[in-house]
Amino acid sequence: MAQQHLDPTDPAAGVVTGESLAGYLRAQATEFLRALRLHRETGGGSAAGAGGSVDAARALRRSARRISGSLHTFRPLLDPDWSEEMRPELAWLSGTLGLEHAYEGRLERLLLALHRLSGAAVFPAQAVATTSAPANSAGPAHPAAAQERGNLTVGAAKAGALLERQLTLARTRAHSTALQALGSSRFHAVADRVAVLASEVPLTPAAATADLRPPAAAAEERLTDAVTALPLVTAGHPYNAEALVHGLSPDPAPHPQDGPWHQVRLLLRLHRYAREVLHGGKLPVEMRLLTAGQALNRHRDASEAAAAAAQAARTPRIAPATAYALGVLHADQRHEVEAARFAFQQAWQKQTAKVP
Amino acid sequence: MAQQHLDPTDPAAGVVTGESLAGYLRAQATEFLRALRLHRETGGGSAAGAGGSVDAARALRRSARRISGSLHTFRPLLDPDWSEEMRPELAWLSGTLGLEHAYEGRLERLLLALHRLSGAAVFPAQAVATTSAPANSAGPAHPAAAQERGNLTVGAAKAGALLERQLTLARTRAHSTALQALGSSRFHAVADRVAVLASEVPLTPAAATADLRPPAAAAEERLTDAVTALPLVTAGHPYNAEALVHGLSPDPAPHPQDGPWHQVRLLLRLHRYAREVLHGGKLPVEMRLLTAGQALNRHRDASEAAAAAAQAARTPRIAPATAYALGVLHADQRHEVEAARFAFQQAWQKQTAKVP
Repeated sequence: MAQQHLDPTDPAAGVVTGESLAGYLRAQATEFLRALRLHRETGGGSAAGAGGSVDAARALRRSARRISGSLHTFRPLLDPDWSEEMRPELAWLSGTLGLEHAYEGRLERLLLALHRLSGAAVFPAQAVATTSAPANSAGPAHPAAAQERGNLTVGAAKAGALLERQLTLARTRAHSTALQALGSSRFHAVADRVAVLASEVPLTPAAATADLRPPAAAAEERLTDAVTALPLVTAGHPYNAEALVHGLSPDPAPHPQDGPWHQVRLLLRLHRYAREVLHGGKLPVEMRLLTAGQALNRHRDASEAAAAAAQAARTPRIAPATAYALGVLHADQRHEVEAARFAFQQAWQKQTAKVP
Repeated sequence: MAQQHLDPTDPAAGVVTGESLAGYLRAQATEFLRALRLHRETGGGSAAGAGGSVDAARALRRSARRISGSLHTFRPLLDPDWSEEMRPELAWLSGTLGLEHAYEGRLERLLLALHRLSGAAVFPAQAVATTSAPANSAGPAHPAAAQERGNLTVGAAKAGALLERQLTLARTRAHSTALQALGSSRFHAVADRVAVLASEVPLTPAAATADLRPPAAAAEERLTDAVTALPLVTAGHPYNAEALVHGLSPDPAPHPQDGPWHQVRLLLRLHRYAREVLHGGKLPVEMRLLTAGQALNRHRDASEAAAAAAQAARTPRIAPATAYALGVLHADQRHEVEAARFAFQQAWQKQTAKVP
């Protein structure tokens, strides 16, 4: 029922104009500035501990993505020069801020998988304790982790320690890079522009009365087209063994088969943001879109975790038992990729079945 | 509709008596003797080449399993002393004769999987050429295989060579053991007993008029009970990640979770043989039983192949790349195990849905 507002041929639906877009962008810009203030207050100086800083960074990325996405979908309604300059800066920002979080999540995912694969009972508290270890404990495992690893084989324990070392290092670097970025003049320029946006949205002269529904419908169509191009029939057959097809491929590039799915993930996000713009605060939660989006997030996470396991296995001079555990882990995550595709297919099928 | 003959409370169904059992056992004994003659004619001397010998060994096992299974299911109708002595001998024979074939199939399965995982196009002819290599080429890969491995990573190629060496050696040993067994006095004693069985079945005095349906129904009930005890709800959820739960377990024992499935596989076979006895030559092919049985065979094969990959990874002084490939291979086969359980669940559900 919410869907019909997107239908530009529906005469009963009220016209949503550029004013709504301006209101949405102002609100997101305000969110951005609030998150920035929070981030400065919580310091954001130390890698560990500052939960408020993590939340602030997440909120910053959240609004940056929404502003950037709206600029893309409703391009014809906005000052083109301004849009063209703004979007890559927002993309740079959310990319830079997202890396630390991504490495942290990847490590947690891989350590949880190692425990699951070892048949060990996993207590989330333990897992968190392991993953939130100080960033500089890059040496052998600290006591708590060592005790926990009593349940693992030597190979699984060593694989876990190796991944912890590598991903913690990457996370620490990403944290420094993010801090540098937030202190850079490039960032201050973005923040200044967003501050202006919070009060003054550069709409084109025609935008105030322009209908937002055609560009929103176009965004949905791009999503639908991309989904149609996915191998959904295969994905709908459980255990199709597709995702691991290149698990031992000599080609070092990341699985090219994942690309179209990542693309759909981005297009689904743009569609969701466009719906937010059209419906303002009165947006009903579309469970099916949510489920499909979660499946694609899981797809991306598992794909990157699998690549991290494969990458770790290329570390020189590791023991065969470590390499074996990393191989099992890689395959496990590639099956997670396949499972996520199946989940997306199921969610999407429900969606298209319900919308007439 | 064929099913109703198994229902002992159905007054419409004709009574099947011990005479049918005797006829079935005589026929299977005759098959056994024919296969034995064929085996002697085709020599059975060389490990490779003698396709006729392979067929003969398969036919020998086929009838040995059927005689042994019928002795078990219809125990009360047969001379107990004779049964007790006969069954372990038949089990020994079919076990000994089956090993060579099992190692050959396991190697073929693992090499095909390595190719699939490498994203290489697999031509069945090539795969067969690799696996039917002379048993004594246990050294480095022969030219054809080496050429084929051009498409694989070093790790996958080395893992393949290692598995080929280990499983070819095991197969060669199994072949020698089978040849020794077929020349032993123990085997000649079994063959003599089967020759007697071909003309004279040691039924108990009451068996000639006894109803075969109650023991057959009991065999079906044992199967149904065992299936009920399986975690079928989990198995029916695709990508439940159960089969790999102990993939990195420090416990060196083979996956204990596979046991109940292997047991169901044996009980399904006994049920099938009991149906053959009841229906004589007029047995309609029960597609659902066939599908369920195939899924359980695949379960067993994948379970054993996964164990062989894990075992190979424990070979001392292998390269990390080899161990990594074996880890991926192990996980892949464990997922095959999970896929086979899913397939069984689907087949079984159809079956119970159709039979009222």
